[in-house]
Amino acid sequence: MRKLILVRHGESLWNKQNRFTGWADVPLSEVGIEEARDAGRLIRDAEISIDIAFSSVLKRAIQTLHLLLEEAEQMWIPEMHHWRLNERHYGALQGLNKAETAEKYGDEQVHIWRRSYSVVPPLLDPLDERNAALEDKYKGIDQKAIPLGESLELTIQRVLPFWQDYIAPALLDKKTVLVAAHGNSLRALVKYLDRLDDEEIVGVEIPTGIPQVYELDPWLKPTDKYYLK
Amino acid sequence: MRKLILVRHGESLWNKQNRFTGWADVPLSEVGIEEARDAGRLIRDAEISIDIAFSSVLKRAIQTLHLLLEEAEQMWIPEMHHWRLNERHYGALQGLNKAETAEKYGDEQVHIWRRSYSVVPPLLDPLDERNAALEDKYKGIDQKAIPLGESLELTIQRVLPFWQDYIAPALLDKKTVLVAAHGNSLRALVKYLDRLDDEEIVGVEIPTGIPQVYELDPWLKPTDKYYLK
Repeated sequence: MRKLILVRHGESLWNKQNRFTGWADVPLSEVGIEEARDAGRLIRDAEISIDIAFSSVLKRAIQTLHLLLEEAEQMWIPEMHHWRLNERHYGALQGLNKAETAEKYGDEQVHIWRRSYSVVPPLLDPLDERNAALEDKYKGIDQKAIPLGESLELTIQRVLPFWQDYIAPALLDKKTVLVAAHGNSLRALVKYLDRLDDEEIVGVEIPTGIPQVYELDPWLKPTDKYYLK
Repeated sequence: MRKLILVRHGESLWNKQNRFTGWADVPLSEVGIEEARDAGRLIRDAEISIDIAFSSVLKRAIQTLHLLLEEAEQMWIPEMHHWRLNERHYGALQGLNKAETAEKYGDEQVHIWRRSYSVVPPLLDPLDERNAALEDKYKGIDQKAIPLGESLELTIQRVLPFWQDYIAPALLDKKTVLVAAHGNSLRALVKYLDRLDDEEIVGVEIPTGIPQVYELDPWLKPTDKYYLK
């Protein structure tokens, strides 16, 4: 039986400050650190042996992975960090306070940016210092692949190649796989596995710090799905 | 210019209790955690960008790597954990208190076990619960490759293939490489790079938590060597 475990990182410093985060690389808050440790204890108590772990290249996901593996007593397993698992890129909204943005653009507009499937937020100017293309961590990537802002749809489109190239092959190889990532990059996997349509996925809320286990048949079709608790 | 950075993990719980550790998988102490963070700050202040990091599969080395990368703001880089970078296996001495062992076997014998080049400590019984072959983390390895006790010489013999297969190719590819490991596995690399003979390497003490930088020419011959401070 193949197992895929999804973990969404917990509270970050900017969640706490109610700011749009996206690809901004902010660390977990103290609460987020505890959520990650709790997730690790759930993995340990469920006696799950992870064979390989994947995360985004954002530190809140990597910290979650590390703390989880430490509590689960499985720090030694192979781990891989990849930009395709990053959170949805929030464009020019990144760093802005959500309440202030709602005052400026109206609640309705902010709701559309946050909850529509295909609406893209205002894009970052390529010369904006927030452009990820300027960061060391994306230096090995075709600069044209680095977004300046993404809808949920665009996020899903760039996450799925990672499923095809890394996660699915590991599962087909009978490995137990853990993915530590973000609300929207995990939505991509949930939409794909649960065959949800574009409207359904928008309504799916992925809880933070609660490992969600998919059991999969040899064709990677889910046979069971549950949260650890 | 190629750069190789070696970091020996800091104090573990068993260092603190004066026990032989070897492949026993004990975590860092609070002091060891601070040493790892300090090492990360030295990397950050030296403005070194690491391209890839290697550690043993023992948590005191992996914790050191993670804390160091967190402080250096480079958590996203690829990391690989490999048993060949493990500490020297201390055989049946693992877990014993060093002072009690000296009382039982005599100071002279313990000195030989600790400081000779080729003397092997008393081997573990394969059925001993401390046998690493029983652990999940070594399940993918040819069981005959898993030691029951090692001299420094044997340790060096199993570390060098990792240099040849992973570290040297990354350096030849012009990557800046960090290795977070242990006193004796790092001695293997120092002996090789500095062309020390069997007697010389026994006298080399590698400080904990202080990154040691080797600068290497295109043939991986060291051109400079210094500690970050």
